[in-house]
Amino acid sequence: MSTFGVSLKKLVDDSYDIEIGFSLESHLVKDLKAGLVGNIKKFAIITDSHVEKLYAEKIVSLLEYAGFTVNTFVFPAGEKSKTRETKAFIEDEMIKKEYRRDCCIIAVGGGVVTDLAGFIAGTYGRGVPFINYATSLLAAADASVGGKTAVDTPIATNLIGLFNQPKKVYIDIATWQTLPKRELSSGMAETIKHACMADKDFFHYLKEHMADILAAEKTACEHIAEKNCQIKYHVVEKDERESGLREILNLGHTVGRAIETVSDYRLLHGEAVSIGLVAEVHLAERLGYATDEDIREVTSLLASAGLPVEIPEYIDREILVKKLYTDKKVKDGKLRFVVQRGIGEIVEFSSGVYATQIAEDVIRDIIEEL
Amino acid sequence: MSTFGVSLKKLVDDSYDIEIGFSLESHLVKDLKAGLVGNIKKFAIITDSHVEKLYAEKIVSLLEYAGFTVNTFVFPAGEKSKTRETKAFIEDEMIKKEYRRDCCIIAVGGGVVTDLAGFIAGTYGRGVPFINYATSLLAAADASVGGKTAVDTPIATNLIGLFNQPKKVYIDIATWQTLPKRELSSGMAETIKHACMADKDFFHYLKEHMADILAAEKTACEHIAEKNCQIKYHVVEKDERESGLREILNLGHTVGRAIETVSDYRLLHGEAVSIGLVAEVHLAERLGYATDEDIREVTSLLASAGLPVEIPEYIDREILVKKLYTDKKVKDGKLRFVVQRGIGEIVEFSSGVYATQIAEDVIRDIIEEL
Repeated sequence: MSTFGVSLKKLVDDSYDIEIGFSLESHLVKDLKAGLVGNIKKFAIITDSHVEKLYAEKIVSLLEYAGFTVNTFVFPAGEKSKTRETKAFIEDEMIKKEYRRDCCIIAVGGGVVTDLAGFIAGTYGRGVPFINYATSLLAAADASVGGKTAVDTPIATNLIGLFNQPKKVYIDIATWQTLPKRELSSGMAETIKHACMADKDFFHYLKEHMADILAAEKTACEHIAEKNCQIKYHVVEKDERESGLREILNLGHTVGRAIETVSDYRLLHGEAVSIGLVAEVHLAERLGYATDEDIREVTSLLASAGLPVEIPEYIDREILVKKLYTDKKVKDGKLRFVVQRGIGEIVEFSSGVYATQIAEDVIRDIIEEL
Repeated sequence: MSTFGVSLKKLVDDSYDIEIGFSLESHLVKDLKAGLVGNIKKFAIITDSHVEKLYAEKIVSLLEYAGFTVNTFVFPAGEKSKTRETKAFIEDEMIKKEYRRDCCIIAVGGGVVTDLAGFIAGTYGRGVPFINYATSLLAAADASVGGKTAVDTPIATNLIGLFNQPKKVYIDIATWQTLPKRELSSGMAETIKHACMADKDFFHYLKEHMADILAAEKTACEHIAEKNCQIKYHVVEKDERESGLREILNLGHTVGRAIETVSDYRLLHGEAVSIGLVAEVHLAERLGYATDEDIREVTSLLASAGLPVEIPEYIDREILVKKLYTDKKVKDGKLRFVVQRGIGEIVEFSSGVYATQIAEDVIRDIIEEL
């Protein structure tokens, strides 16, 4: 008998830049020509059926004009496409088009595109570089910082995926002007979540500028794009792998993700998170960490963004409670929640612990009344 | 317009131990009780239909006796199961059985099981720890060091996967005694590859002790298990992500993997690699790096292990040549090969470059004559 030690220590540098601005297509191509991903000449644009015509085609033209090889891989727009099957379909198409490891993936789209493309990049040839060109507020708030990529399965959202960092993120605010109103509102849910968990001033800014934001006014959009990055980055840099602090980003998501799944994606991600934020500020109030006034403030800001603040009639409350148990935070079969303290702060239950066990009855009560 | 820098530098320690010995089931359980994977109490055993009854059940009993929660996830034995579909099936079963991130996967089996289970572990809940309990010579040679995990697709082997390091590897030599003769021979292909590429003395040892090895004699088996780890580790510690030196592990695999796919898995992985090693020592001879005597030595050692050394009649040579282009080493659409120098060394074409571009005609000639 013998034991053999494999020593694998290394310094990893996954740092990258996020560029925020108007119409950044030419910036992307300039960066690639300047060697952003080394001497790679072959690019795979992954996008959806909505974004393809709006933005991906322009990027393809510019890349081709610059002498790069490019193919576009398109899947039907919508959260229902964020599956292992879509991932396999794109992989097979890439293999057929002779993509090997010497390629780079560019995700052009919203949160579904960036989540899916980042996951594909992480496992294609055991990993190829990728770039996010975010064309929605949700992608800007959610997918630009953090490196979370995933697909949904029939029983659980985001349970299969990877931590995978992009080489660069472009947040093109010009694209927000073409977003359907419902999509822009949906994106606001993550922004409001950031304010609730970390920044009371930003919460007030959102209250005052909601009309500008919903009109995709440039200065307001730049400000919220930057704030989203700052707040999320502050969390992620301290806890990339979600062992402690990063759990606070789950505010509103424990209930939200469950509602999203039970609605069978009739609700957009942000809409489900909005209802989740309302449910969870009620939870904070029950636990003594928030006031009735906080509940009213949060609920009314979400409503002013055009977001739903009640659980739709068609959602079976009992199925919803059961669905909570598919959450990744569940430990030893017990539900765990992140809890906000007033507005702009998260409760730290003990050193480095930001989620607490909640009895099923407490959350069932809230869900039944919402 | 603004740019936001995300700084993500960190020291990663993926070190782990490989334990080589006879009947290590109780060692595994002892290690888990001693905190090998922290305070995790829930384990998922992933195994195949052959190994389940032979070894997995014993491990399950021991774990249950020790007070852990365990479920077994079984798929049909054979390379044909190494697919995205099997991965999805096991994930869904794990979700149904309420596995979340607070679990650990134990792969009990040969190379297919360890490749598949390591990949599942890498993407389940964006990553849970895993342990390899290797029950075949191939798994010992191939899956114990290196962290490569993958599945096959209909068009290419091992193209979708991850680098993912286990928490510990157990090489249980007792299991080799129950391996079908064909499987044991198949495992010898990777061992002979290691000798060809890095260790002439080991090549001679294999020549002298082939009968002992094929009889699964204990001392000989321990020796080759250790040698395999040493040789592979020496390569992997210098180049974990296969950017240079690690490519030398591809000796015999450029042709081998293509044959394996074109045979539709009628050939076992090691059998295909054996033929690949013969083809590629012929290539070395054409390029002036090996002699006729080297070809005879390599061919006869492979044959003495009970491995095929010619391309079967049923393989269409032209399809095989085309299939070479699905190899991950292909760059700018050109075939690239690792080349052995005599026996026990690999050619370094320029500093840090171990693969060279080969014209299709050269390799076609060899394939047509083999």
